[in-house]
Amino acid sequence: MAETQARLEVDELQQKLGELRELIAHGARSAELRARLDALHPADMAYILEALPLEERLAVWNMVKADRDGEILLEVSEAVRESLIEAMDSAELVAAAETLEADELADIAADLPPAVMEDVVQSLSPEERERLRAALSYPEGSVGALMDFEHVSVRDDVTLEAATRFLRRLDKLPDHTDQLFVIDRAQRLKGTLPLARLIVSDLHLEVSAVLLRDAMKFNGEDSAEDAANAFERYDLVSAPVVDSAGTLIGRLTVDAVVDYIRQRSAEAHLAEAGLREEEDVFAPVLNSFKNRWAWLAINLVTAFIASRVIGLFEGSIERLVALAALMPIIAGVGGNSGNQTITMIVRALALGQIQRGYWAPLLKKELGLALLNGVVWGTLLGIVAYLLYGNVALGGVMALAMVLTLMLAAVMGVAIPWLRSHFGRDPAVGSSVLITACTDSGGFFIFLGLATLFLM
Amino acid sequence: MAETQARLEVDELQQKLGELRELIAHGARSAELRARLDALHPADMAYILEALPLEERLAVWNMVKADRDGEILLEVSEAVRESLIEAMDSAELVAAAETLEADELADIAADLPPAVMEDVVQSLSPEERERLRAALSYPEGSVGALMDFEHVSVRDDVTLEAATRFLRRLDKLPDHTDQLFVIDRAQRLKGTLPLARLIVSDLHLEVSAVLLRDAMKFNGEDSAEDAANAFERYDLVSAPVVDSAGTLIGRLTVDAVVDYIRQRSAEAHLAEAGLREEEDVFAPVLNSFKNRWAWLAINLVTAFIASRVIGLFEGSIERLVALAALMPIIAGVGGNSGNQTITMIVRALALGQIQRGYWAPLLKKELGLALLNGVVWGTLLGIVAYLLYGNVALGGVMALAMVLTLMLAAVMGVAIPWLRSHFGRDPAVGSSVLITACTDSGGFFIFLGLATLFLM
Repeated sequence: MAETQARLEVDELQQKLGELRELIAHGARSAELRARLDALHPADMAYILEALPLEERLAVWNMVKADRDGEILLEVSEAVRESLIEAMDSAELVAAAETLEADELADIAADLPPAVMEDVVQSLSPEERERLRAALSYPEGSVGALMDFEHVSVRDDVTLEAATRFLRRLDKLPDHTDQLFVIDRAQRLKGTLPLARLIVSDLHLEVSAVLLRDAMKFNGEDSAEDAANAFERYDLVSAPVVDSAGTLIGRLTVDAVVDYIRQRSAEAHLAEAGLREEEDVFAPVLNSFKNRWAWLAINLVTAFIASRVIGLFEGSIERLVALAALMPIIAGVGGNSGNQTITMIVRALALGQIQRGYWAPLLKKELGLALLNGVVWGTLLGIVAYLLYGNVALGGVMALAMVLTLMLAAVMGVAIPWLRSHFGRDPAVGSSVLITACTDSGGFFIFLGLATLFLM
Repeated sequence: MAETQARLEVDELQQKLGELRELIAHGARSAELRARLDALHPADMAYILEALPLEERLAVWNMVKADRDGEILLEVSEAVRESLIEAMDSAELVAAAETLEADELADIAADLPPAVMEDVVQSLSPEERERLRAALSYPEGSVGALMDFEHVSVRDDVTLEAATRFLRRLDKLPDHTDQLFVIDRAQRLKGTLPLARLIVSDLHLEVSAVLLRDAMKFNGEDSAEDAANAFERYDLVSAPVVDSAGTLIGRLTVDAVVDYIRQRSAEAHLAEAGLREEEDVFAPVLNSFKNRWAWLAINLVTAFIASRVIGLFEGSIERLVALAALMPIIAGVGGNSGNQTITMIVRALALGQIQRGYWAPLLKKELGLALLNGVVWGTLLGIVAYLLYGNVALGGVMALAMVLTLMLAAVMGVAIPWLRSHFGRDPAVGSSVLITACTDSGGFFIFLGLATLFLM
């Protein structure tokens, strides 16, 4: 990473962005703009490109020095990367891709046109080509897809003095080198040697005498989520990655893990609101439509089902129109309560806090809570309904419907994640849509059904 | 951190947990259980305590060696920490707290009884007491509240050889020491010296000749969120923290940042579902009720308002009961679409991608998208309504209401975060509740209003 570019705090970055926009708006000479852009760290360039509307973004992008294109493409979000790649021709893309390391290339390979990738692969050294092949062979969400190849390894049978001499010959250690990976003649990982330990140890000792043998290591096939949890639990900065034979093949660093955590949490957050992926704020309407239509369509279907449930009871509503005004309260509160339950359970599942044998007590607890909530809020709502419509029986139906709907929400809030995890699915995806669909249709059915039974 | 305890992958941890529960269930001798617990890393002990029901949790907690209590209390979630602290007497708490560093003590100070804190403060050295005071003086969400005091600093006017000799005298460098902080005689920060640079440099040089002067540093008052963004942008492992005079007061490390990011994203996620804070899965019903009631109450109020809006049109519903069955579709799809807009905008705001002057084009884009969605889904719904009820005018009202409700959702989806950020509030808090309240009441009003105008 370039060290000549100053690192900025967020407010400084915002200010730079404002100045740049002023300069663009006032038609500044491109030489001046270029000089300012060159002084920015690639991550800050990415930030600025993401915060510029499409036209200004492409104007700025064209002024960036060609040899920086690669590292900036790596930093921007996927949606913005697409908009930048679209504006480049094949030769520019090949030149940009050729500035990247094998693991970085693997990260953006999917966004590059196949012809460009072919040209780039041709230009790689056999070693780099093998690394690219290795990085691309691991599926998304695995440790292998997040690893890099910049580790420094030393043999276990040399002295610390020899190891130090070897390090001095390197001009500079790669970022996040907090430890060296110790290997034997056959490249098999024997342990790690933290720099902090190397510095304070007697240089005449052999590496094998001071290495940590039980250091955390990962297999390329391990899940990235598990690795991220381990980095968090054990406060790791880097960890070696091995293949099934125990041979060192790469390393995982905390910066890749932080990016992964951020991305996962952003995706989960967007998915809950029914957005398929991160959206470029300045995307054309049609791109946004593509990102959002699927969940709206699902929502339309579930809303339609709820509507047909109401349709079953049109006779009752015709005779007591207050039912139409009161029914959304039951469905709404039921949905909210069900979402609380399912969110809590999905999170506990993700943290591994729910073991086999825990489901029954969990359900019992949630049912108890639903009963308590139902009695509290149901009584309140029943009184309000009575005061509004002067109908005691209507108030009673309202209270009873509230209790039953909250209990339905509790059952479904436990059952949906249980079933999904039981069948090996991700319990988080679409959990909110599913529970709301249940509580809407169920809430309408319970309330209108009870009203038909007791009030007609 | 203890290095003798093996580090486990998640599946190994799950297995340990299962074995422990078996042992407890079969009444194993406590000596055997104790031996197993002692072999676990504090973070893993925390994981296991969080995943055990209250009774088993306290049984296990009582078997943990007293000198490990402190570091384990530090690792568990706040809800579980409360349950453990409740089970300890004052003497145990004081003993546990005394094993912690000043910055760690600051993290759990709020959960300890005041009398215990007083005893602990009495037992601290003047230097530690001053550090504790400093750590507690910074508000939650600031860099000062996340920093620790384990940095290693060197003077700028010594040689690298002297610096290395100084490091050798320390038995072990603190975790996450990837760089030394360079200070002058007056403790003012001059820059940093990465270990990776120290190792590869000529030992006869002075520290001042090789230090990095423009390394990222933070002020204790800086926002933790901004610092976390900088750690992510610049891939940092540690950074010095200074006071307003430029004096080195502590350091921020990537593990504290990762914990902060995870916690923030968990809180945001829970808040969206109407949970006030992280919940202990095995909490008694009454604790859960306290955590969840506030948002249910707000939801009840907004649902009641929507109900009164429907009440205004009871006459129309009485004459055309199909309205009651169709109205939840309009409100539901409007709410989903508004949530998509507001989620996208709140996220872009948090990333700093929305500048002044961007709001108008954003609103235009969202309105364009709403119009497109309205025409597509409105037409579809209009046709379905016509087929169901054989009423062309009803189909037309349905389509028009869909278009208008989606446009209302777009306006409110942009206006709510704009207003909140304009008045300096966090645009994320309660955004989902607010937008749903608008689209529910607004959707019912638009649909029933149009129906009353055109169909009655």
